[in-house]
Amino acid sequence: MVIVMAPGATQQDVDAIVDLVATAGGDAFVSRGVNRTIIGLVGDIAQFMNLNLGGMNGVADVMRVSTPYKLVSRDNHPDRSTVRVGGVPIGPDTVTLIAGPCAVETPDQTLAAARMAEAAGATLLRGGAYKPRTSPYAFQGLGEAGLRILADVRAETGLPIVTEVVDAHDVELVASYADMLQVGTRNAQNFALLQAVGSVGRPVMLKRGMNATIEEWLMAAEYIAQRGNLDIVLCERGIRTFETATRNTLDISAVPVAQRLSHLPVIVDPSHSGGRRDLVLPLTRSAIAVGADGVIIDVHPTPEQALCDGPQALVDGDLAELAAIARDFPPLMNRTLATKLAPVV
Amino acid sequence: MVIVMAPGATQQDVDAIVDLVATAGGDAFVSRGVNRTIIGLVGDIAQFMNLNLGGMNGVADVMRVSTPYKLVSRDNHPDRSTVRVGGVPIGPDTVTLIAGPCAVETPDQTLAAARMAEAAGATLLRGGAYKPRTSPYAFQGLGEAGLRILADVRAETGLPIVTEVVDAHDVELVASYADMLQVGTRNAQNFALLQAVGSVGRPVMLKRGMNATIEEWLMAAEYIAQRGNLDIVLCERGIRTFETATRNTLDISAVPVAQRLSHLPVIVDPSHSGGRRDLVLPLTRSAIAVGADGVIIDVHPTPEQALCDGPQALVDGDLAELAAIARDFPPLMNRTLATKLAPVV
Amino acid sequence: MVIVMAPGATQQDVDAIVDLVATAGGDAFVSRGVNRTIIGLVGDIAQFMNLNLGGMNGVADVMRVSTPYKLVSRDNHPDRSTVRVGGVPIGPDTVTLIAGPCAVETPDQTLAAARMAEAAGATLLRGGAYKPRTSPYAFQGLGEAGLRILADVRAETGLPIVTEVVDAHDVELVASYADMLQVGTRNAQNFALLQAVGSVGRPVMLKRGMNATIEEWLMAAEYIAQRGNLDIVLCERGIRTFETATRNTLDISAVPVAQRLSHLPVIVDPSHSGGRRDLVLPLTRSAIAVGADGVIIDVHPTPEQALCDGPQALVDGDLAELAAIARDFPPLMNRTLATKLAPVV
Amino acid sequence: MVIVMAPGATQQDVDAIVDLVATAGGDAFVSRGVNRTIIGLVGDIAQFMNLNLGGMNGVADVMRVSTPYKLVSRDNHPDRSTVRVGGVPIGPDTVTLIAGPCAVETPDQTLAAARMAEAAGATLLRGGAYKPRTSPYAFQGLGEAGLRILADVRAETGLPIVTEVVDAHDVELVASYADMLQVGTRNAQNFALLQAVGSVGRPVMLKRGMNATIEEWLMAAEYIAQRGNLDIVLCERGIRTFETATRNTLDISAVPVAQRLSHLPVIVDPSHSGGRRDLVLPLTRSAIAVGADGVIIDVHPTPEQALCDGPQALVDGDLAELAAIARDFPPLMNRTLATKLAPVV
Repeated sequence: MVIVMAPGATQQDVDAIVDLVATAGGDAFVSRGVNRTIIGLVGDIAQFMNLNLGGMNGVADVMRVSTPYKLVSRDNHPDRSTVRVGGVPIGPDTVTLIAGPCAVETPDQTLAAARMAEAAGATLLRGGAYKPRTSPYAFQGLGEAGLRILADVRAETGLPIVTEVVDAHDVELVASYADMLQVGTRNAQNFALLQAVGSVGRPVMLKRGMNATIEEWLMAAEYIAQRGNLDIVLCERGIRTFETATRNTLDISAVPVAQRLSHLPVIVDPSHSGGRRDLVLPLTRSAIAVGADGVIIDVHPTPEQALCDGPQALVDGDLAELAAIARDFPPLMNRTLATKLAPVV
Repeated sequence: MVIVMAPGATQQDVDAIVDLVATAGGDAFVSRGVNRTIIGLVGDIAQFMNLNLGGMNGVADVMRVSTPYKLVSRDNHPDRSTVRVGGVPIGPDTVTLIAGPCAVETPDQTLAAARMAEAAGATLLRGGAYKPRTSPYAFQGLGEAGLRILADVRAETGLPIVTEVVDAHDVELVASYADMLQVGTRNAQNFALLQAVGSVGRPVMLKRGMNATIEEWLMAAEYIAQRGNLDIVLCERGIRTFETATRNTLDISAVPVAQRLSHLPVIVDPSHSGGRRDLVLPLTRSAIAVGADGVIIDVHPTPEQALCDGPQALVDGDLAELAAIARDFPPLMNRTLATKLAPVV
Repeated sequence: MVIVMAPGATQQDVDAIVDLVATAGGDAFVSRGVNRTIIGLVGDIAQFMNLNLGGMNGVADVMRVSTPYKLVSRDNHPDRSTVRVGGVPIGPDTVTLIAGPCAVETPDQTLAAARMAEAAGATLLRGGAYKPRTSPYAFQGLGEAGLRILADVRAETGLPIVTEVVDAHDVELVASYADMLQVGTRNAQNFALLQAVGSVGRPVMLKRGMNATIEEWLMAAEYIAQRGNLDIVLCERGIRTFETATRNTLDISAVPVAQRLSHLPVIVDPSHSGGRRDLVLPLTRSAIAVGADGVIIDVHPTPEQALCDGPQALVDGDLAELAAIARDFPPLMNRTLATKLAPVV
Repeated sequence: MVIVMAPGATQQDVDAIVDLVATAGGDAFVSRGVNRTIIGLVGDIAQFMNLNLGGMNGVADVMRVSTPYKLVSRDNHPDRSTVRVGGVPIGPDTVTLIAGPCAVETPDQTLAAARMAEAAGATLLRGGAYKPRTSPYAFQGLGEAGLRILADVRAETGLPIVTEVVDAHDVELVASYADMLQVGTRNAQNFALLQAVGSVGRPVMLKRGMNATIEEWLMAAEYIAQRGNLDIVLCERGIRTFETATRNTLDISAVPVAQRLSHLPVIVDPSHSGGRRDLVLPLTRSAIAVGADGVIIDVHPTPEQALCDGPQALVDGDLAELAAIARDFPPLMNRTLATKLAPVV
């Protein structure tokens, strides 16, 4: 941390800060310039976080130098991590294709979507049983009945399941069915939920909040990690900007930035970011080319009947092109398309 | 709703939509232009929300005409509402001053802050026992011990309590202490929490999500209202923009806009929007002058020791000016400063 | 400036920076911590701006401490300035009301709008002869013919004129008619135009760019000041955000923030920020209450026929309320409504 | 256009609109619903733009259906265009690599950067002689001396030149040296400049304004096209959002969206969007994969000495990887890397 003193700060003001830092176990180095005095703090940042240095007399600004997250930081863990979901890796050597319906509606619809996902090369199945919706009058998901459908489709196809949980008190129930828990964009700062998914033995996909900075996204991951669960995959899904041509603005740069700051895998959701079917394939190519560790895509056998986000789901006619992308692009990135690994014996 | 057909849409495409709307109980009126055909839908919007009209063949765009919220809309309730909190009104005839510490830390600090609040003219006490914090390493609040402190201070001062709840499963506990439940900006789309506060018999202050449009804010209120609780006060607290000089950008225009769309009272939080002590009084004046039904302000006896958001809390030296604003500005708006009403006998 | 070195930076890296700073005439103070070395630079910031310190080996971050603007900064000019426009002051002791039509359309319309402005208490007349429009197919203003109309109306009413200039090469022509030149939001980084208005002897009203930070706005003012013209009035007119209920989001906090950073007067445009007639009066009250030095408002005798921005112009029926605001609110701010001063003899 | 009437609109209000539209040469179709009446307008949108329909009695909302731009719209020109710059195509069959220094500083630096560009596969040379800078104290470019350096380097290397023009009155001078004129992000609504580059016989690269919607960007292109110049290449270079980890947020989705709305080529600037060297190659891959028609990249022989934007320039060590991307990625998109074509005889 660096503390910049105001022009009129007194020697007493400076001494008070040096003393306060010392009592917290840190060291303070004072540089006096013509107009300003600057104090550099050395030590563990957690020591300083509750000192309210910004409220001390004479302080003009407090600048943080170290990152505020530790467990998910790449500083302390230089190698990028691989998270395994039901045997399928998500990490730096592969591109993992996750696909399925936005919402689980019926057994037939879910199985059909799973078969579409498989045909395109997907090795993980997505599907929502609990749907956070802006309107209380919109379809909110089938709940546990939806989870049972997902489990049946897993039994039929062998595809491990990724599904969303929206309430801290549903985490154990959802984890009893799911291979990976998804935390959605609207819950990116629902700290009770983050702590709950951190306490259960399942990998977590953490979507970026639509208004979260990359640092806040990593802090949310730190909430999960702090409870002992480091099997976290970050998912960029678009941020809110002034542009209205797309539902959100896919922040493609966030992928390499987050990979540089954190050792966690980073994937992209090209379906929800744009909200438009015609953008899904271009954004999928773009995501793999920027270095994403995977993509998660909505597919639907009959999107005109979908109860949620039909306009963005890929249809049968799109699968051949998606499969071609999944085949042709990973090798250019020195990666392979992820497949289920034989369990280590 | 208005459906705009693509240039190449066929008669069959149009007929399919007319039929679909009819089966949902609505009426469709077709206007054929030189380049485009437009279909106007008449009926209750809830009929159409799950039809996925945007996914039908030939559809270029679907535009919504009516508002998607009903219970909180002013269309159906032209008179503006007054919500009473422990006998204190928040509504169109008054300006209500809510003040207190950001976080409850100790009994002494909370009582001192309450006395400061009273001195400035406040008739409701704010104070957080559960604090949602971006960092898992920051102070998270005292929990139920904090609620007990608030109840003690209420007994001592007579000030009804406004306090935040962050988890759906804490709602009953918090409601057993609080006069008004606060839902914070990070939980503005935590639908489980919204439904829970909608089911308990306490007024709710709903802060705007920092990335929520005014429409989404009203939809969040609709979630509460739909569960039977219409004692909702909306609180504008700044939105996230590119500007970094202030923590958030207070959207002062949102006050009259929300008051025009909804019958619910709208107040302003000048402390959290700017995040700077020097802006609190100017923004308080600004809020009353724009027509806000109240303001909620952080005060702290010793902000340099505050465990949360000290730099934005007003101090003793600010109270005289705050009291003067509370005295002088409401009359210009043909309002009075809210006081506790004698209960109706 | 503060330079934060990367964890692996060498002594040579540090020495290279210290030497570079020294050759530029500055002093560098080195603080070595456990993990990081920090270098504080003392001297004139202009010395360091072209050094490309961020590109030096071992540098992790360069933080600027002093402000990058000087002439408009309050650091070097603690008293707030008053700018006089045709004898009318804009500054800390007054609230100046500027009103008139968005665009000059006809002599009759302009005179009628000027009479409306006077009736409400305005002492400066706004009106555009050159209109920057998003569409090349929209009305672009009358050009010099419009300036002649403004001059005629000034002769008739005595109201000094504020009018926009959009091209550096029109500055002299416009200045030959106008009492104050306006630089619009779309030209907030048109540096050729800023330099041109800085070189002509007329006060300038500089609107904030709709995407400009407060710092960038002040840097734009610095461009004008650097050419020798310090008669600059800043005008907050809304920034672009995700919210679509209003045309732009009025950043009301920007008024006290800019007044604290700069000695220049700051006014507010409540008409263009919201783009809605029903918001103009609430936002006018809000602007005066936050401490703005004036407001600039669109009025139009027949807005349904306006060629530009009719939906936001105040009409005859609004004038009594505007006049009441202009009468009642300034005294609460210890200000008077600005009037034309008798020239100093 | 679609006009939505307010609930209380009268028959007279509706008739007045129908009559007004008729006098403007259009047709109006009225749909009466239970709560609302909707009027669809058919005809040429230019007829309706100055009618101020939003200001008519009883109108709740006016929705535009057709696009407000014509000449650059793909509606009227379904095939995507190819623009040729000194014989080098930018269009749907190729990926064009444009590279060079951000700013022209010296003959040696410019020639060295041009050789770097060539080595990576570039066939057009970028370089700025006029630099718009936020600070008046920063390097503003060499002006005409810089143009002469560019012309000398073109003579030496054969690379056609792309260079920025910042003032309408410099357009002829810059065009006398340049093969393509660049309009920068800060001038995206400098309409005098747009019209000037529309009137001169040189291809234009139009960068998106950092706060411009895609529609506004296309409207800016329409300003150029309206003056008779359709040799326009659109360049996405990042928009301003709340995220501060990158200088701007590259809106990668804007590429396919703009290509769908307009027949003009669309390229990407991965250097200025991120402002960080480490993001340039990932974003270059991403841009080609999303379907961009080219990329424009900063390279510099000695970026630590650069007078402008050194931290984002690629260096010698990056060229092999850039060349590999330029070789390997276009074929996956069924494109070839653009080369200079033999002139048609």
